[in-house]
Amino acid sequence: MSTDKITCLLNWHATPYHLPLFLAEKLNYFVEEGIKVAILEPNNPSDVTEIIGSGKVDLGCKAMIHTIAGKARGFPIKSIGTLLDEPFTGVVYLKSGNKISTEFDSLKGKRIGYVGEFGKIQLDELTRQYGMTPNDYTAVRVGMNVTGAIIRGEIDAGIGLENVQMVELEEWSVQQGRSRDDVAMLRIDELAHLGCCCFCSILFIGNEPFIQQNPEKVKAFMKAIKRASDFMFADPVKAYELFVEMKPHMNSEVNRKIFQRSFRYFSRDFKNVQRDWDKVTNYCKRLDIVDQSFEQNQTNEFLDWPLLPEGPAGVEPATVDTGVLACCGCKGYVKPTVQASA
Amino acid sequence: MSTDKITCLLNWHATPYHLPLFLAEKLNYFVEEGIKVAILEPNNPSDVTEIIGSGKVDLGCKAMIHTIAGKARGFPIKSIGTLLDEPFTGVVYLKSGNKISTEFDSLKGKRIGYVGEFGKIQLDELTRQYGMTPNDYTAVRVGMNVTGAIIRGEIDAGIGLENVQMVELEEWSVQQGRSRDDVAMLRIDELAHLGCCCFCSILFIGNEPFIQQNPEKVKAFMKAIKRASDFMFADPVKAYELFVEMKPHMNSEVNRKIFQRSFRYFSRDFKNVQRDWDKVTNYCKRLDIVDQSFEQNQTNEFLDWPLLPEGPAGVEPATVDTGVLACCGCKGYVKPTVQASA
Repeated sequence: MSTDKITCLLNWHATPYHLPLFLAEKLNYFVEEGIKVAILEPNNPSDVTEIIGSGKVDLGCKAMIHTIAGKARGFPIKSIGTLLDEPFTGVVYLKSGNKISTEFDSLKGKRIGYVGEFGKIQLDELTRQYGMTPNDYTAVRVGMNVTGAIIRGEIDAGIGLENVQMVELEEWSVQQGRSRDDVAMLRIDELAHLGCCCFCSILFIGNEPFIQQNPEKVKAFMKAIKRASDFMFADPVKAYELFVEMKPHMNSEVNRKIFQRSFRYFSRDFKNVQRDWDKVTNYCKRLDIVDQSFEQNQTNEFLDWPLLPEGPAGVEPATVDTGVLACCGCKGYVKPTVQASA
Repeated sequence: MSTDKITCLLNWHATPYHLPLFLAEKLNYFVEEGIKVAILEPNNPSDVTEIIGSGKVDLGCKAMIHTIAGKARGFPIKSIGTLLDEPFTGVVYLKSGNKISTEFDSLKGKRIGYVGEFGKIQLDELTRQYGMTPNDYTAVRVGMNVTGAIIRGEIDAGIGLENVQMVELEEWSVQQGRSRDDVAMLRIDELAHLGCCCFCSILFIGNEPFIQQNPEKVKAFMKAIKRASDFMFADPVKAYELFVEMKPHMNSEVNRKIFQRSFRYFSRDFKNVQRDWDKVTNYCKRLDIVDQSFEQNQTNEFLDWPLLPEGPAGVEPATVDTGVLACCGCKGYVKPTVQASA
């Protein structure tokens, strides 16, 4: 017997930046748009493109670089929109007791944690750019446990997001009677001279045959989440309250701060940004993940509302007033050292 | 492109009683047994039998009553083992400010939360047994948010497990400066004269075509989890430590207590208990969920080790020494009012 439930597999366990998806469910928007959606969470982020690509799951979320890599490996997946635009990504570490500096070669001899295989590919490429080899550091695959592995001392540094792993480490640091400023990041976009962190933009993706066969359902899916996203921008406090009702363990200081820090990265219109796709496609060619003939697996055809013009990349916007969870309407770069208010 | 990853969808978000599954992954037992497993978590427990039954997901977990009901509705699912034997299930409530007593008819006029549709069917049947009608109470579908809905006052009582929702409420009660004893349960097995809570035993289940086509994989899956379960019984403290490394939010007082309280329910040999299946099949006939010709959808053929004899049902064993997380080797009924030590 078949099911009319659309399965949607997140890129990571439920995290505050997934709020629009959960809110669409909570506010009954999926049903109002005529679809049923089952939101599933993975325990290994490396499963996601393969499971969606093989058609076992219909839709989901994944970072841009993995979406491109998955397609290049033969899994028919396609991006149908953007959830998070260019969250800062880099090598996160604690300054104290760690001879890591802002120079990449200070990672020599260190144990660096990465999530899945592409993090290692990125690091290996950086070693070559900085006159090192992949043998100059020890790569440790840690899956979703980057923060814990740093805290337990299993790794000296690990790849993470400014709005997630950095926040977790900062909060832990404060609990230890240390400073938030003890947490630092070597930004991959800066090390690799990319000009933006778009390779880590979190996209909505889908299995291509599913998308082709169900365009109306895909449109309804995106519309429901867009409505939830609009609700979140209008009333982030209420939105987070509803999220906590669905996911009680999100009612913690650290997760509230992750939400605050994620706020500036949320896409306003969900569009796939062509400029970013071009940059990341080139980056993937440099990494030998895709060949020269690669055709971008992305579309904005399911976004049934006016799309905003592409903003300038790499611009420093005003700081978001995270204290009250209100957004100033900015979009773009903020220094990763921005303070989250209590 | 296809994938050789076996998808496994839990019956609930990750909860301490799922520890053997996570431990099998953490200790690399799945890989050692020659399989790759992607553990997925749902956000709506009502999705699970349908998604596994439709073949979108291969294996998973689900309570016995839902496993029978899903099959009766035409979804080809089958139990391949038992994770949790007979956890106490009932209507959980706070005594203070709530005129609910040990009598079922004290629920008259109350708002009672249930997870999915079968909870409501069970409640409705109970009303008839106790001279009431389904209109004598207000049913509120709350999904996985039973505890939160009680705390927020959205419902007066809700269906839950002794080893999960009762623990959550007890911990909340203590935080409020109240007593653990303020939390009580009307046990469904007692109200419905079932003689055991086996309808709520949490089973390993699978999609039938998947099972038929992949018997060796199913055997390997069960063996890996059995090895993890043996590890857990031998060293529950270490097992929980490893679980926390995978799921950091399990590092909380309430989740540690849920693990302690779940410990006595863990099946030692994963067998489907024939006596329990017979009872629950009869109960499902009484509930009109299955017809008289229903054939039980369960097998122990993938359990490649000696099975223990079926123990007596409804026997009060010695209390588990939850303080040190050691188990006395008991198996069976314990009063739900048992104290969890700090």
